[in-house]
Amino acid sequence: MLPPEFKILPLSDLLRPSLQNKIDQKTKPLGALGLLESLALQIGLIQNSLSPTLENPCIIVFAADHGIVEAGVSAYPQTVTRQMVDNFLAGGAAINVLSAQQGIRLVVVDAGINADLAGHPQLINAKIAKATANFLTQAAMTSEQCLQALHSGAEIVLQQHQQGCNCIGFGEMAIGNTSAAALLMHKLTGLPLAECVGRGTGLNDAQLQQKLALLQQAAQRQHPPEALAILAHFGGFEIAMMVGAYWQAAALQMTIMVDGFIASAALLVAAQCYPAVLDYCVFCHASAERGHRALLKHFNATPLLNLDLRLGEGTGAAIAYPLLQSAVLFLKQMASFGDAGVDGSH
Amino acid sequence: MLPPEFKILPLSDLLRPSLQNKIDQKTKPLGALGLLESLALQIGLIQNSLSPTLENPCIIVFAADHGIVEAGVSAYPQTVTRQMVDNFLAGGAAINVLSAQQGIRLVVVDAGINADLAGHPQLINAKIAKATANFLTQAAMTSEQCLQALHSGAEIVLQQHQQGCNCIGFGEMAIGNTSAAALLMHKLTGLPLAECVGRGTGLNDAQLQQKLALLQQAAQRQHPPEALAILAHFGGFEIAMMVGAYWQAAALQMTIMVDGFIASAALLVAAQCYPAVLDYCVFCHASAERGHRALLKHFNATPLLNLDLRLGEGTGAAIAYPLLQSAVLFLKQMASFGDAGVDGSH
Repeated sequence: MLPPEFKILPLSDLLRPSLQNKIDQKTKPLGALGLLESLALQIGLIQNSLSPTLENPCIIVFAADHGIVEAGVSAYPQTVTRQMVDNFLAGGAAINVLSAQQGIRLVVVDAGINADLAGHPQLINAKIAKATANFLTQAAMTSEQCLQALHSGAEIVLQQHQQGCNCIGFGEMAIGNTSAAALLMHKLTGLPLAECVGRGTGLNDAQLQQKLALLQQAAQRQHPPEALAILAHFGGFEIAMMVGAYWQAAALQMTIMVDGFIASAALLVAAQCYPAVLDYCVFCHASAERGHRALLKHFNATPLLNLDLRLGEGTGAAIAYPLLQSAVLFLKQMASFGDAGVDGSH
Repeated sequence: MLPPEFKILPLSDLLRPSLQNKIDQKTKPLGALGLLESLALQIGLIQNSLSPTLENPCIIVFAADHGIVEAGVSAYPQTVTRQMVDNFLAGGAAINVLSAQQGIRLVVVDAGINADLAGHPQLINAKIAKATANFLTQAAMTSEQCLQALHSGAEIVLQQHQQGCNCIGFGEMAIGNTSAAALLMHKLTGLPLAECVGRGTGLNDAQLQQKLALLQQAAQRQHPPEALAILAHFGGFEIAMMVGAYWQAAALQMTIMVDGFIASAALLVAAQCYPAVLDYCVFCHASAERGHRALLKHFNATPLLNLDLRLGEGTGAAIAYPLLQSAVLFLKQMASFGDAGVDGSH
C-alpha cells in the first residue's frame, strides 16, 4: 500500500539566525525563557516569519470503535465510545472545557463508531465502518478502508485550514485504542511489546497481564512489513484518519500540537512515510500511559508538559496551547534591549 | 525579632471526601487528569468550596537593589533593576506580555530601588531605602527595615484582596538577588552553599566561582540564628516584602502561585515562621537556576511546569496560571457520569 501523495517540505533554516537574534535581543537574560524560546523559534520557522501568529486554533477529535475490545483488553465496553461522543456534543467532557477555556474550536469526527449518530453541527460524519475487525483473527481494516481513512483525515484538516486555522491538534476517543497503539509502537520502533502496553483507562494488574497476553498473540500474526500495512492490520480508523491529518497539516505548514500516546503512535506511522512531518510537531505532553515516554524518546522529543495526564481526547494539546501562545506573544510583543534602553545586550 | 502576627489556618480536611468524589464522578477515567486533579482538590480546600473560582488574579513584582552587587556577584550592574522597572511600566518585559495574555493584573512595587522613580499608576512606592547594605561587611538591613518591609508586603496584598483578588503570585526584579536567596537557602535548609549558588542572569564559570567564594565569605559572618534575623542579614528588601506578602495571602486564604528560585527562598523564610502558609501554595515551576530543584525537594513540592525558565519577574507564575484555571474549570463545568449517561463510574 503506497501512501497518498503529499508535498511536505522540511523546514528551511533560512530565517533561523534572524529569529534567534530577535529572541536574544529581548529584555531578558540569554535563554531565560527556556523551552518557550525553542518553541518561538520552531513556530517562526514553520511560518517562515519573524512574527508568527496562531490563528483559529482547532482540535479535531477522531472517534471510532475497535473490534479487539470484544476480546477483553479494556476496562470499558465499546458503547462508551458513543456515550462519550454524545458527551462531547453536549459540551460536558474534559476536552470541551479545556478547549473552550483556550478559545480553541472543537470538531468531532465519527471515524467509525459502532452506533448510528444523529447529525450535529459539531460532528463530521466520516464513518468508515461500524468498528474495525478484531485483529486477533483478521486485519482490523482492509487496504481500501485504510486509504479512505487517510484521505478523510487529510480532507478534514484541509477544511479547517480553509477556515483560517494554522495551528491544529488531534485527539481521539476510541475504547480499546491503547491496544492498537501499543502494537503500532512495538512494530514500528522494535521496542519490546511489554514496554508498549499500559493500563489504558485503568486496568488492574491481572487485566493488564491479560491485555499483554492477547496483544502478544496478535503480534505473532503475519502481515506485510510496511507502516501502512501495519496500520491497516491493527487499526483503528481514528488512528488512520489522524495519520492523514498529520500529513495534510504538515503539507499546509500548520503548527501541529501532538497530544498523548495514541496521537504519538499515529505520528509514528505518519513520520515513517513522510519524516518531515516531525518538523511541524510540538510535543505537548508526556502521558502517564506506559509507553509514551519511550515513544517521546524515540522521537527525540522534549514534551512541554509533564502533568501525569492520561485522558486522550486532545486534552494535553488543549492544555499546552497557552504555551504556544506565550512563545508567539513574547516574540512579538516584548521590547528589545535597544527599544527599552536596558543595558546588557549580549 | 518576632514575626508580625498573622492568623494562618492549616487547611481543613472537612471537604476533602466530597471534593474527591466530585472529581472522581467526572466523565474521565479515575485520576486521568493527573496534577490538575490534585490542584482542583487543593484550591477547593483553600476556598472551602466544591466550586472554587479564581477571581481577579494578580502578580506583584517587588523590585529592589542589593548592596552585594558592588562586590561583583552579578552579570549586570544595579542600574539594570531600575531600567527593567521602567520596562515593566512601559509594558515591554516578559511579565507584561505573559500576564496580559492570561488576564492577570500586574502591580510593580518599589521595595528599595537605588534610584528615584517618577509616579506611575501601576507602581506602588514602598521604598525602604536605596538598596540594601553590602552583606559582606554588615547586615543588609536593620531589624526595623526588615519589619517595615514585612508589613509593607502584607499591606500590599491586603489591598489586592480588597479589590477582589483571591489568587496571587509574587515576582521580583533585583539585580544580585540570587546571591541573597542562595544564602537564605543555605542557612535555612542546611544544604551546602555550593548547591545553592547558581549562574543567576548568566555568569560564566569563572564568575560563578568568584560569586561562590564571595558568598562563602559572607556565610561565615556572625548573625542570630532565627529566620528573620537571617533575612535581615542577607536581604533583600524585595524578599522581605515577599515574606510578608505570603503571610497575608495565606491569612486571607488566597491561592498563592509560587514562582522560581527567589520566590521559593522567600517562602522558606515565611514557612519557617508560619508553616501553614505552605498549604496555600501552588509551586508553579522548576527554575533552571541551580538550587531551585533542591529547594522544591525541601518543600516536598511537585512543580507544575518544567520549562527551563530562569527569568524571575513572576513569569513562571503567569505561565502556570492557565493550569490553575483548567483545574477550577473542569471541576465546575465537566459533566459527571450520571449527568452525561456515560457508563463506568467507579
